[in-house]
Amino acid sequence: MKQHESEVYTVFWRGDAVVMIDQRVLPHEERYNEYRDVREVADAIRNMVVRGAPAIGVAAAFGVALAARESDGNVKAISEACDLLASTRPTAVNLFWAIERMKEHIDEGAQALLAQAELILQEDIANCKAMGSFGAELVPDEATILTHCNAGALATGGWGTALGVIRSAVAQGKKVRVIADETRPFLQGARLTAWELKRDGIDVTVVPDVAAAALIASGEVDMVVVGTDRVARNGDVANKIGTYGVALAAHADQVPFYVAAPWSTIDMNCPDGDSIPIEERPSSEVTHVLGQRILPEGVPVRNPAFDVTPCELVTALITEVGVVRPPFEDELKRMKPA
Amino acid sequence: MKQHESEVYTVFWRGDAVVMIDQRVLPHEERYNEYRDVREVADAIRNMVVRGAPAIGVAAAFGVALAARESDGNVKAISEACDLLASTRPTAVNLFWAIERMKEHIDEGAQALLAQAELILQEDIANCKAMGSFGAELVPDEATILTHCNAGALATGGWGTALGVIRSAVAQGKKVRVIADETRPFLQGARLTAWELKRDGIDVTVVPDVAAAALIASGEVDMVVVGTDRVARNGDVANKIGTYGVALAAHADQVPFYVAAPWSTIDMNCPDGDSIPIEERPSSEVTHVLGQRILPEGVPVRNPAFDVTPCELVTALITEVGVVRPPFEDELKRMKPA
Repeated sequence: MKQHESEVYTVFWRGDAVVMIDQRVLPHEERYNEYRDVREVADAIRNMVVRGAPAIGVAAAFGVALAARESDGNVKAISEACDLLASTRPTAVNLFWAIERMKEHIDEGAQALLAQAELILQEDIANCKAMGSFGAELVPDEATILTHCNAGALATGGWGTALGVIRSAVAQGKKVRVIADETRPFLQGARLTAWELKRDGIDVTVVPDVAAAALIASGEVDMVVVGTDRVARNGDVANKIGTYGVALAAHADQVPFYVAAPWSTIDMNCPDGDSIPIEERPSSEVTHVLGQRILPEGVPVRNPAFDVTPCELVTALITEVGVVRPPFEDELKRMKPA
Repeated sequence: MKQHESEVYTVFWRGDAVVMIDQRVLPHEERYNEYRDVREVADAIRNMVVRGAPAIGVAAAFGVALAARESDGNVKAISEACDLLASTRPTAVNLFWAIERMKEHIDEGAQALLAQAELILQEDIANCKAMGSFGAELVPDEATILTHCNAGALATGGWGTALGVIRSAVAQGKKVRVIADETRPFLQGARLTAWELKRDGIDVTVVPDVAAAALIASGEVDMVVVGTDRVARNGDVANKIGTYGVALAAHADQVPFYVAAPWSTIDMNCPDGDSIPIEERPSSEVTHVLGQRILPEGVPVRNPAFDVTPCELVTALITEVGVVRPPFEDELKRMKPA
């Protein structure tokens, strides 16, 4: 089992299987599922056993490795597995990024593909640490930081993007208090962010999503940091539904709004937020909470999984090569890693 | 039993008891509780058997009538009952307004006080109808209207404030589609607004609160209408937590943001939103959904029940004497009913 400092094992390889912590049953149960078939991995991504853009990328990479192993390196079979994995979720660009990267090694055999997936995992953790260091510089010595959804160890290979910034600030000895939006409908904040920060001994308070704007207006929030599923080249940010509302509130009260964005989430082929496909998730996530129906029967719902925060509301992007400030398109081109 | 057109019976007098529909168990169960003791009425207000500023006012008035009956018109006992009822919830000004109005008749005996409470109920319904007529003029012939929380028949004596505007527009033959925020933590939108609109055959779709801003940004929302628990004389509006976020989103996309405010919610003694006390509700509303724990044990929460929308974000107040537009303080003074 891979060890990383956060000690949360999100997606990893063990023996002949991909292992993932089942994020549907946290925090009540810490269950690890083993997958030996790429179709099971695709289902796990679709059904949110694993979620969070970087973690989805890592899971898909291991899925490709699994297909290579199952087919004994058959290129057609691996290619079909890539197509299957790419069909699972439309918004997070890391999924496509990881699959493309695996495809570059498609004819190198199963062992090389597994090594590549492991490399994607290790780079992901290293990138989170680098983002953490750059981001921690933006955190005041005593800070109340609001975050939305879970951009933590559970959303990545480990350490986290937004929560990586928080972990790095804490590691530097800064006194950080976190306000975590509960993040309906899937409750990533209440279930996952609260769980992993409490486990790390970081001060965390959960609020209903509806309370975020008022808390920001009250003056008690020093900064906002969130993750992202895709950044367009103009700096528009797709992230968990509700992020845009938080950004509006931060902007109204001049609270800095940072987006922790590993380069794998930055889509230079995408001109702006309007070009980012937004996934609509199943109704049952809204009509039910943990299996219990909350709505009257027969009332329709909407369940867009992401929204777009326009670049004007983004103070800066925190990447593994540094902090990117507006004008984003120029700066992204300038700072793009080789 | 009093009949009103909406056919939802929120708070009414029957025989020797105050009857209230139990809003904690809707939509799963339509349960009517009878109260014969003012202490039970105070508990019912505190525990949200009944909620919504106008409905709380009506319930308190009947509570005073009950105390008068129990004590055979003893002024000291009635006065103590008024103090008890006034201690239940701090934000909705109708509570204090209704109690003050009952106090004006405190020495007229039990029968007169019951008649006064009945009058408050009937006036509340009449005011909702009047607000509905004025508000319906603001609704386009085909409109998608977003609302937050429940400002419906269940929040009033009947017909509703924000939903009264919608009901009146529908009654005028306008084609209205409603988007109802689910309104965590108590889920008034998912449980109550959806229930009463579906019952009336009005097209309603429920969305997680986090989706409201994105739907407004998408251009599919023509107007927002909400209720209020207290309007300060400068036009700042206290309403269910989350309202401020909706107002920010509406403002960002130039979507009209209307507040249906019976005059009993307008507090001319209150200079601005900073002077409105904001109730903090029990943690269990956030840690649990319908009795099921969603958070890890030991993680603290915040649960402010209301927020303040600054007057700059309010397009107009819809009252029973007409639509009030900025500058609010001047217009409220000019239009104040005798």
